[in-house]
Amino acid sequence: MKALVYHGPGKRAWEDVPDAVIRDAGDAVVKVDAVTICGTDLHILGGDVPEVTEGRILGHEAVGTVTQIGPGVQRLSVGDRVLVSCVTACGTCRYCRDGAYGQCLGGGGWILGHLIDGTQAEYVRVPFADNSTYAVPDGVTDEQMIMLADILPTSYEVGVLNGTVQPADVVVIVGAGPIGLAAILTARLYSPSHVVAIDLADARLEAARKFGADIVINSTTTDPEAVIAELTGGLGADVTMEAVGTPQTFELAVRLVRAGGHVANIGVHGAPATLHLEDVWIKNLTITTGLVDTYSTPTLIGLVSSHQLDTSPMITHRFGLEEFETAYDVFGNASETGALKVLLTARGG
Amino acid sequence: MKALVYHGPGKRAWEDVPDAVIRDAGDAVVKVDAVTICGTDLHILGGDVPEVTEGRILGHEAVGTVTQIGPGVQRLSVGDRVLVSCVTACGTCRYCRDGAYGQCLGGGGWILGHLIDGTQAEYVRVPFADNSTYAVPDGVTDEQMIMLADILPTSYEVGVLNGTVQPADVVVIVGAGPIGLAAILTARLYSPSHVVAIDLADARLEAARKFGADIVINSTTTDPEAVIAELTGGLGADVTMEAVGTPQTFELAVRLVRAGGHVANIGVHGAPATLHLEDVWIKNLTITTGLVDTYSTPTLIGLVSSHQLDTSPMITHRFGLEEFETAYDVFGNASETGALKVLLTARGG
Amino acid sequence: MKALVYHGPGKRAWEDVPDAVIRDAGDAVVKVDAVTICGTDLHILGGDVPEVTEGRILGHEAVGTVTQIGPGVQRLSVGDRVLVSCVTACGTCRYCRDGAYGQCLGGGGWILGHLIDGTQAEYVRVPFADNSTYAVPDGVTDEQMIMLADILPTSYEVGVLNGTVQPADVVVIVGAGPIGLAAILTARLYSPSHVVAIDLADARLEAARKFGADIVINSTTTDPEAVIAELTGGLGADVTMEAVGTPQTFELAVRLVRAGGHVANIGVHGAPATLHLEDVWIKNLTITTGLVDTYSTPTLIGLVSSHQLDTSPMITHRFGLEEFETAYDVFGNASETGALKVLLTARGG
Amino acid sequence: MKALVYHGPGKRAWEDVPDAVIRDAGDAVVKVDAVTICGTDLHILGGDVPEVTEGRILGHEAVGTVTQIGPGVQRLSVGDRVLVSCVTACGTCRYCRDGAYGQCLGGGGWILGHLIDGTQAEYVRVPFADNSTYAVPDGVTDEQMIMLADILPTSYEVGVLNGTVQPADVVVIVGAGPIGLAAILTARLYSPSHVVAIDLADARLEAARKFGADIVINSTTTDPEAVIAELTGGLGADVTMEAVGTPQTFELAVRLVRAGGHVANIGVHGAPATLHLEDVWIKNLTITTGLVDTYSTPTLIGLVSSHQLDTSPMITHRFGLEEFETAYDVFGNASETGALKVLLTARGG
Repeated sequence: MKALVYHGPGKRAWEDVPDAVIRDAGDAVVKVDAVTICGTDLHILGGDVPEVTEGRILGHEAVGTVTQIGPGVQRLSVGDRVLVSCVTACGTCRYCRDGAYGQCLGGGGWILGHLIDGTQAEYVRVPFADNSTYAVPDGVTDEQMIMLADILPTSYEVGVLNGTVQPADVVVIVGAGPIGLAAILTARLYSPSHVVAIDLADARLEAARKFGADIVINSTTTDPEAVIAELTGGLGADVTMEAVGTPQTFELAVRLVRAGGHVANIGVHGAPATLHLEDVWIKNLTITTGLVDTYSTPTLIGLVSSHQLDTSPMITHRFGLEEFETAYDVFGNASETGALKVLLTARGG
Repeated sequence: MKALVYHGPGKRAWEDVPDAVIRDAGDAVVKVDAVTICGTDLHILGGDVPEVTEGRILGHEAVGTVTQIGPGVQRLSVGDRVLVSCVTACGTCRYCRDGAYGQCLGGGGWILGHLIDGTQAEYVRVPFADNSTYAVPDGVTDEQMIMLADILPTSYEVGVLNGTVQPADVVVIVGAGPIGLAAILTARLYSPSHVVAIDLADARLEAARKFGADIVINSTTTDPEAVIAELTGGLGADVTMEAVGTPQTFELAVRLVRAGGHVANIGVHGAPATLHLEDVWIKNLTITTGLVDTYSTPTLIGLVSSHQLDTSPMITHRFGLEEFETAYDVFGNASETGALKVLLTARGG
Repeated sequence: MKALVYHGPGKRAWEDVPDAVIRDAGDAVVKVDAVTICGTDLHILGGDVPEVTEGRILGHEAVGTVTQIGPGVQRLSVGDRVLVSCVTACGTCRYCRDGAYGQCLGGGGWILGHLIDGTQAEYVRVPFADNSTYAVPDGVTDEQMIMLADILPTSYEVGVLNGTVQPADVVVIVGAGPIGLAAILTARLYSPSHVVAIDLADARLEAARKFGADIVINSTTTDPEAVIAELTGGLGADVTMEAVGTPQTFELAVRLVRAGGHVANIGVHGAPATLHLEDVWIKNLTITTGLVDTYSTPTLIGLVSSHQLDTSPMITHRFGLEEFETAYDVFGNASETGALKVLLTARGG
Repeated sequence: MKALVYHGPGKRAWEDVPDAVIRDAGDAVVKVDAVTICGTDLHILGGDVPEVTEGRILGHEAVGTVTQIGPGVQRLSVGDRVLVSCVTACGTCRYCRDGAYGQCLGGGGWILGHLIDGTQAEYVRVPFADNSTYAVPDGVTDEQMIMLADILPTSYEVGVLNGTVQPADVVVIVGAGPIGLAAILTARLYSPSHVVAIDLADARLEAARKFGADIVINSTTTDPEAVIAELTGGLGADVTMEAVGTPQTFELAVRLVRAGGHVANIGVHGAPATLHLEDVWIKNLTITTGLVDTYSTPTLIGLVSSHQLDTSPMITHRFGLEEFETAYDVFGNASETGALKVLLTARGG
């Protein structure tokens, strides 16, 4: 079969590899019908994720068709159309029992395209398949579904639910890249009064409006603190989300929240931030961090299936699997191409 | 009447002052039967709280007897025995409606002995008296009750409830001064499996054992991370509380918590801390800060009244009101005197 | 001034009465600009609420302008435009401290037009005015606001929040009268996948569709249990709400819910229902009842103000205050007039 | 091997049966070291549970040693000492994902000694063994552990947690049989101010005192409503639990709760109750029902292991496995023998 293989920092190729096969009783092999590229994949290619070794097939998101199942698989059958989630769950450890699948202690968590071969391939082996895949309902397209593999549950769980967005809240999202846009989209499920997007680029802020932000702030020209203070009578936002991954944006998110509010960190960070406890010890803040657990995937599937959530605006570019290298170029150069998420499909079936 | 008056950094005196009187419709005047000194009062005397101006009567904790009420007071009568809480609540602003009295926008919050004259006096004027005092149940002593004015609700709300201590949790409390001891005491209300106290002084750790810690760590000689790792199979504690107010102790509290755990900051901070987002972004942490709101005061009264909570071990030294200056000396020199909380009572009635 | 006075079962008149005046320190007098009639007022006129004595001015909902305030009022000024809520709150009792204003022990609760004179008048005295009125934001009309006096917080709190509607839920509302329609409208704030309305009358079901029900069932011709079973794979609905007030509709709501689901009773009942514990003891049900507390009024005001919630379709008929008797006839004969809510305004200013 | 076999209403025998063997990939076979008898087993013998067919081995609670595992078992090894829970969990269905294992749709739930052969035997086959057994910590005896198979998680989850017992609450438990006593014991984990037990038999009320009730009411001689009214200033209890399973006791639990309180039904019911909606529609009640899910088993193990919970007073009589028929006689005749729970152990090893 063909797959996108990592060959060390900056090197990757769509090439022939051995077929995916069943190894453990709970495994399934899934033929990949649709797959995407995550910002994390770019970090891997940048050499920032040393656990990913040369020869690894990348990718942790897919929609596909089950072609083989191991003897311990209970819930899946060959031919089933499934979402392959970015998080693999053993289903029995203490974290999995709590729905914290991303923290799985039993060999799961984020392993696809990381510790084991991933989904950017014609076929993928999925361990603990019963707990790591989700049936695709009739009438839902691969294109709608693929966004539920990672970006939507991440923004929804780590941003919206950790931030406890409530009806009538003022919600601020710092960063309007793909994950910030997904946070805007899913924050709207709880009917906040205002969703404010902050970014450095007008193009991303324009996208933010399309995803549901009613107020946008380009922080290169406008002071976010002044805007939020005016909007909230000087109190600050009910919920702020950090969706970039830098100390500056985290610290801005903390400054913009009101006493008693929530700061939800979604961004992936490589450096420490300063927490101004001398200011915030008195403010009744709740600050949360998190890796996606995907416990919300059934909810998101229900929302897509019932047309309460439309994920399709996330996808800006479409390719065949054989165009994987071009897709990486387009996605990796988002500031010029305007790419949000790219979709790759096995066109020939 | 007599009162303890602040005369600038380092200067205070028990002296004659004008009598406390009703000013606003919702005021009550309370004769002080029992009062204590808070660590915050020492900070004021140290000159660290510039809002406190010269001539201010200090103190924000008392048990006493109502002697006058304003025309707008609904719930109190002259002669009622009441707890005067450290937090005054207007009862009608958006924060008071949410029980976040400490964040009151209507003229309340922590004002006694801070923005207005306080409780270290023979009489004190209490604004918004209906919402800022609590009836003392029959059979509860002044001595038990006075601990509910500040230290117990602070440790319980900002530590135990914000940290969401649950049955069977492993709870770590960094700092075994009075507030840390109160956190140990109130954490036990939720039946954690272990309460671990960390401090630099063996005398405080000895006290921690008496208040309910079953494991104590002197971090000058023992590595807390190693102890907690062994206790929890390498995962970390379910809940950690910071009860000192330094960057180092906050950062230790963050290091000791497990993925998915809670870090509750109780300490008052004067400097920023480093938040290692590069480590914790992935750990599903919840970090909380807070000033006491005193929404839990009725619960704590119920616990004391029904003998589920015994606050008396908090009080180590007892004085008459006329000995206030000595009491400050004893409390201010806790490392030598071993003082936890000092009680001052109007002995002559 | 003029007011709508109850003169015993079936008798009421718009007539001259003594002017509303301040009695207690916390009172305000409000000039009524807009007022409505509640289904409860019809019950009173039917003689079903014996606490209401002859001579009582009816009505517990208004939008108006403050004309006088007592000396204990903190937050209001003469000239303020306010919502007068159906629930009066002392603000200091144990229930008010918990936001359960409807259960107020301090002389509040539902008293207007019940135990004291109400809002169906040119002026109304509002006790505990700080906690019983809400500022009307600029740009919000009396017509939008009046729906927040009772029907919207009732449906939202007692139906949607007690029922804990969550994104992607299947929600069933039994009864599509005004309160059921308001429950449909506010359930949509949480993005359920389906809102199912059940009623006996096609006209009400047609209205239900306009308010946001995507599935409607006329239970005279269609079996609701079969429809819900098919929709949910045989499991039942996540949340059911009873919005009629009969044993039959309550029992239907219990039959339609899934194991682990919530049944929220909104209806006012005059007779006991049968709870089939032999069926439901094993089903992990949560059944709630409640009088509105109006703790959600600020949230609802924020939603109306930010155009996330449009209450105007509730109002089907409009009158001047002097037409009060006609308005009662129209509202009391809803099956013929199609009235949902009627609005009465002081047209001359 | 030997087992206790059901032979139709009133008939059971400890007799030779075929050995327990692995059938499915996720099965384990466990040698039974300790086992008990549940009140439900008596109902089965009474012919009240028609799903139990002749020839069935009874029992759904055990502590034992793993002797065989299927190829799909991940977490267990031969020789492990485990608790066999009354609830079997597939671990992948929508209810199992929510921790509602008792409602398992994937072939689990309460099946042992019900739909498949159970634990009252020398060996038992446990399906979905990874999710249906729990490791016994070092230092915890079989005798402590066996109480966690059913009665403790039932009382804790369905009574204490569904009832949301909080510190300082007044908790009333109607019925002081084994399940009521376990509810008293586990309610104390949350430091209520009072735990009130109500029963018809003084002997059971005497036991209730030993398990932690501080007030007991024999309702044949004392009116519970009067006692609770006096204790709570006329308001009613914060939480009431029904632990009998009759309409009368359920209705009493509803009458004794305060406005805003919780009624947790624990009892197994065979007949409908009357719910006086005409009284309670206005009272902001939350009424819950439930089968045990055993999601709390790890918490309870942590409590026993850390000596925060002592289950041993539950066991009043001890037998060898070969005395199973005598044990049934003793347990089935509790009013004379005073039996709470009986323990049967494989004495010879």
